[in-house]
Amino acid sequence: MAQTDLHLPSPRHVDPSWRAKLQARLDALAKPTGSLGSLEPVLCDIAAIQTTEHPRVRRPFFLLFAGDHGVAKDRPISRYGQHVTEEMVNHIASGRSVSTVLARSFGVPWRVYDVGMVSTPSHPDVRRCKVAAGTRDFTRGPAMTLDECAAAIRIGMQAVRDAREDGADLVILGEMGIGNTTAASALSAWLLGVDVDLVVGTGTGIHEQALAEKRLVVRTALSVWRDRAPSFPQGDARWLAGLAHLGGLELASICGAVLEAAAIGLPVLLDGVLVGACALWAERTRPGVRDYLIAGHLSPEPAHALLLGELRKRPLLDLGLRVGEGSGALMAWPILRAGLDVLEGTAIFSERARSGRDVE
Amino acid sequence: MAQTDLHLPSPRHVDPSWRAKLQARLDALAKPTGSLGSLEPVLCDIAAIQTTEHPRVRRPFFLLFAGDHGVAKDRPISRYGQHVTEEMVNHIASGRSVSTVLARSFGVPWRVYDVGMVSTPSHPDVRRCKVAAGTRDFTRGPAMTLDECAAAIRIGMQAVRDAREDGADLVILGEMGIGNTTAASALSAWLLGVDVDLVVGTGTGIHEQALAEKRLVVRTALSVWRDRAPSFPQGDARWLAGLAHLGGLELASICGAVLEAAAIGLPVLLDGVLVGACALWAERTRPGVRDYLIAGHLSPEPAHALLLGELRKRPLLDLGLRVGEGSGALMAWPILRAGLDVLEGTAIFSERARSGRDVE
Repeated sequence: MAQTDLHLPSPRHVDPSWRAKLQARLDALAKPTGSLGSLEPVLCDIAAIQTTEHPRVRRPFFLLFAGDHGVAKDRPISRYGQHVTEEMVNHIASGRSVSTVLARSFGVPWRVYDVGMVSTPSHPDVRRCKVAAGTRDFTRGPAMTLDECAAAIRIGMQAVRDAREDGADLVILGEMGIGNTTAASALSAWLLGVDVDLVVGTGTGIHEQALAEKRLVVRTALSVWRDRAPSFPQGDARWLAGLAHLGGLELASICGAVLEAAAIGLPVLLDGVLVGACALWAERTRPGVRDYLIAGHLSPEPAHALLLGELRKRPLLDLGLRVGEGSGALMAWPILRAGLDVLEGTAIFSERARSGRDVE
Repeated sequence: MAQTDLHLPSPRHVDPSWRAKLQARLDALAKPTGSLGSLEPVLCDIAAIQTTEHPRVRRPFFLLFAGDHGVAKDRPISRYGQHVTEEMVNHIASGRSVSTVLARSFGVPWRVYDVGMVSTPSHPDVRRCKVAAGTRDFTRGPAMTLDECAAAIRIGMQAVRDAREDGADLVILGEMGIGNTTAASALSAWLLGVDVDLVVGTGTGIHEQALAEKRLVVRTALSVWRDRAPSFPQGDARWLAGLAHLGGLELASICGAVLEAAAIGLPVLLDGVLVGACALWAERTRPGVRDYLIAGHLSPEPAHALLLGELRKRPLLDLGLRVGEGSGALMAWPILRAGLDVLEGTAIFSERARSGRDVE
């Protein structure tokens, strides 16, 4: 299917009055006012998404998209060789990666999509949706054609529709792809309009020389993109072209997944810098998407705090996690679930307690 | 029993070589080195406590101690009247407080001890161990007699021994007592040797005038204690006298619980400023206790960051929680459990992945 057929859906409208209604419920619970800290606005957001004073999440789904990056093929911008994408995807699908150990531990079902790996993982549960065997080197031209990018977006959209069909009431998105923090840095610099030095981090833990190379690669990619950008009309055409140039197949799928979730009214629990860059792309392309986003954790990658700041989201966790794969979002899930449980299970303060001190 | 019979136990020795052994196991997992962030040192600590490369926590127990504070009786230093201690303890015991909703949600059993409430809660599951019906106003003299303080410490020690008897392999400690952040501030200023203004916070959410009163109360209590302190010989006698003067019955029980846990080799997952002050008292009294402490969360109460800094602990959560009752520690429990699950369930990197990039 050609990219010209791609329809990017708009987020469902959110009525902010539900936030105030939920805050009133929170304030009546037998606890000091506001004492659930940064969980309280998140619970209010879910109430607004679900249009209820009794928000619940019963069936979160973890959707992971994998793809390789041409730019990582012959350059030491990651600590790991490109073949590690395949090894990790097999671990993920078999429930033996950090992310899927967490998912199993918390009872979250997962689905793994090969949307653009160089090799093909052996695990039978990996969904075979390969759009291309990796992207092209984005320092020389676009990482993907517009059609490839559109196809990857559609896979993400369909994955969210399928999850919803199977009962999902929240989605957790994750990725695997050696070299993809390089692409996320490029996307972040473009979407945030900031200098490369502010957004390039050590990813899997590269050293100074590799970091300098990574910065150079991102700077070059952005420069090539900036020369091409004016040839695309502003609006969807340019957002798509930028994503196709600077992104990755798994990242395009995540962009599609975020847009679709917001369109059909599902909250998205965000992971780190990869999913964060995709979320900001979705918000730029369809403003209002952010109403559906919950920030799971803060990654040490420098772009992430900037992305969350732009999305005006405060992360639930700040553990210094840099595993990727959606694991930061999965780690935040029990905290979010706990907040929902507290909302339903905690007693209401008596009039006598609420009226304040006896002596007043 | 008189305080002179009180034997404060010493922490079991911890062999730090287990930390290095566990770090090596973490480094072999299929994830970037160090990428579990601040969870990694905590997992290493548990390995050292349990002397194993396969640390597990199967049965955490939540022990909550309740007591009232004479200083809170006729002063607006809390948003709530003293009767709210009773209301809250009934909610806690019936599983309808924030803390016990969390405990139930995470499958953690709880026990509630009345060690010093003014009234007696009606819920049949509250263990009746009342040492006194609240403490005395500590601006006029010691909050407790030495015998009362020793009795409360013993109750905490026995509670931990009982939990261990019933299979506990980790303890989560919590408290309830209107006015007890005032006592915790006084304990913190004494143990940290810092000015009152650095440690007094808004607690349940008091306003400026009440905060000024709270500061004055703490300053007065410390000044009375400092006049008395030199009459106690340095060492256990003075640590006990300071706790008896500035603390509370529920806080003394927590001090005893922390000491006993370290003595019998159980890790303690710490809550906020109340439990933090007790933990620092235990560490000052018996250096080495800190090897058994895990910082669950960071409270917004200003003393807490100072206490954790002195204990050299980094909190797992920083959600701005200020519920008290042990709820910050309970909220951190699934994160800790998840870390232990990741350690057991995650695949080992292949030699090929570990050897780094193909191109190197």
